[in-house]
Amino acid sequence: MDKIQKTLDLIEPVKQRFSEKARKHLDNLTKPRGSLGRLEDFAAVVVAITEDLSPALNKKVVFTFAGDHGVTEEGVSAFPKEVTPQMVYNFIRGGAAINVIARHVGADVVVVDVGVDHDFEDMEGLVIRKVVKGTANMLKGPAMTREEAVRSVEAGILLAEEYADKGYNIFGTGEMGIGNTTPSSAIVSVFSGKSVSELTGRGTGVDDETYKRKIRVIEGSVALNSPDPEDPLDVLSKVGGAEIGAIAGLILGAAYLRIPVVIDGFISTAGALIAYKLKPEVKGYMFSAHKSMEKGHETMLDIIGIKPFVDLSMRLGEGTGAALGIGLIEAGIKIYNEMATFEDASVSKEAE
Amino acid sequence: MDKIQKTLDLIEPVKQRFSEKARKHLDNLTKPRGSLGRLEDFAAVVVAITEDLSPALNKKVVFTFAGDHGVTEEGVSAFPKEVTPQMVYNFIRGGAAINVIARHVGADVVVVDVGVDHDFEDMEGLVIRKVVKGTANMLKGPAMTREEAVRSVEAGILLAEEYADKGYNIFGTGEMGIGNTTPSSAIVSVFSGKSVSELTGRGTGVDDETYKRKIRVIEGSVALNSPDPEDPLDVLSKVGGAEIGAIAGLILGAAYLRIPVVIDGFISTAGALIAYKLKPEVKGYMFSAHKSMEKGHETMLDIIGIKPFVDLSMRLGEGTGAALGIGLIEAGIKIYNEMATFEDASVSKEAE
Repeated sequence: MDKIQKTLDLIEPVKQRFSEKARKHLDNLTKPRGSLGRLEDFAAVVVAITEDLSPALNKKVVFTFAGDHGVTEEGVSAFPKEVTPQMVYNFIRGGAAINVIARHVGADVVVVDVGVDHDFEDMEGLVIRKVVKGTANMLKGPAMTREEAVRSVEAGILLAEEYADKGYNIFGTGEMGIGNTTPSSAIVSVFSGKSVSELTGRGTGVDDETYKRKIRVIEGSVALNSPDPEDPLDVLSKVGGAEIGAIAGLILGAAYLRIPVVIDGFISTAGALIAYKLKPEVKGYMFSAHKSMEKGHETMLDIIGIKPFVDLSMRLGEGTGAALGIGLIEAGIKIYNEMATFEDASVSKEAE
Repeated sequence: MDKIQKTLDLIEPVKQRFSEKARKHLDNLTKPRGSLGRLEDFAAVVVAITEDLSPALNKKVVFTFAGDHGVTEEGVSAFPKEVTPQMVYNFIRGGAAINVIARHVGADVVVVDVGVDHDFEDMEGLVIRKVVKGTANMLKGPAMTREEAVRSVEAGILLAEEYADKGYNIFGTGEMGIGNTTPSSAIVSVFSGKSVSELTGRGTGVDDETYKRKIRVIEGSVALNSPDPEDPLDVLSKVGGAEIGAIAGLILGAAYLRIPVVIDGFISTAGALIAYKLKPEVKGYMFSAHKSMEKGHETMLDIIGIKPFVDLSMRLGEGTGAALGIGLIEAGIKIYNEMATFEDASVSKEAE
């Protein structure tokens, strides 16, 4: 807990004077003022976060945190639980969607076992930071103890520190965990006070019967555990998951280390919500990359007050939306760094 | 005109059986069915267009067609007309936004003078296919003769053929021409029958007075020339522009050569509208990349029936939206080509 508190204490609001300087430079580039829209915003935000007037994104990484969920025994997913470790092996061999998209944008993928119910051998490319071997079934009690929840967040902070030391300039979040839209819907229902049915989608694609059961399971879990919305770690422990905690930790670590962090879809934003509730200032360090197809995603984004910019009807997770987002943010940084100014190019400026 | 007619005759509807085959392969990849949304659509569409079950996008190119507009003498733009040739030089030196974004996605930029009111020297990287030295002022008569309009479309078709021969696998459209949102609004008003004020935006960013004048100029030009909406070349010649005609031609050429073509924003979609009105089957060969901030863009897209997938509040043109779109389409192709199947990866499939 000391680690988390220390991290929270170190997070400062993003300094607007840097983004103002960035805007001045952007307005001098050979294009109508503001005509590159959010690409310009990306650059201004990255300048403000890094406090670097020539920011580079040389080293990019997406963290795919894997964890299992005891609640899958209630039959809330279209896939069997064994798929979580199977997909971890797939990530390590480079055959999953996140591997392909990360390669496309030039980002590394770091796969982290933070809560898989399987004992992995040592493998190149797999980071083992196991906090639980799957969470407990939240319909029968808390998913994690408070101590486990704390350790999952600390795991994320420590990874942020480690990869900052390795020279990475931007982080993306991602996850893999059969059943993990269920705790994510539970988390947003606790924080928003909205009904579970409004906030619950079909995850990887469940049928009508399973969908109705999923809603009842989430309602039952929230009622049984009565998580305290004023205590984000209580929410995380009772109806969350280890990968969600690790994502929250990664975001907190990124914020204090002044590294931009790009949030993937529904489950990642549940982690972002925990981080935001612990320290609202983290908002300035995050980008929401893609609009998930999951129903509750918009409510999460509204609470934090961030707006996604990739809308490709995706609902996969793993960090795929974050990776695409990193590619677009990098386009904005290159605009900022590489375009000619009106003076350089002897181009007439617009009428004031 | 023979060239255009021959091209139209060669365009066939996209064959759906190829996209069905692509879907089968996509459903076997290690992800829930359809969970990569439009990325999967991109792959299926490219397979259908190319009739190639392992399509590659090795060589990518964005064409930036430059042209001037006589109607600028009515004061419809925030920038002076000299900016068109100045920006052509900027493109050639690699300092413009399109250069930066095309480099980012690994696409080449081909700058084509199809109607600039300036005599360029021979320069590496500039393709001169001049049809007019600026169009005539459409408020006083037709912007181009029918013969000039035909030659602008032919210029686009010839470039499509040339760059297909050079081995390019995907084309993007772009343009540069001070004042060219004005003819674009005129074109969509003629085809849609909607009022000019509904379809006219602020282009590069004009003030209120100029904006009102711009609407009156477009209304006056359409009234004076009464272009025939049943005759797309009549519309192009009377209230269009050379770069808009070349974009239409490039799309027609791409369609008959079975090369996917990615449409940029407002002005490019005006060109796409001309191509679509000449041959509705071209729709199957186009992607609409980005949603422009220009008011009339949505009406154009509705007429053609295509939906953009990049929404970054951009309003620059040059092909910047198309280039970002090419990057995302390529992500879809890589998903299709590079991901492991459930069998390869020994991952359990979802319940049927």
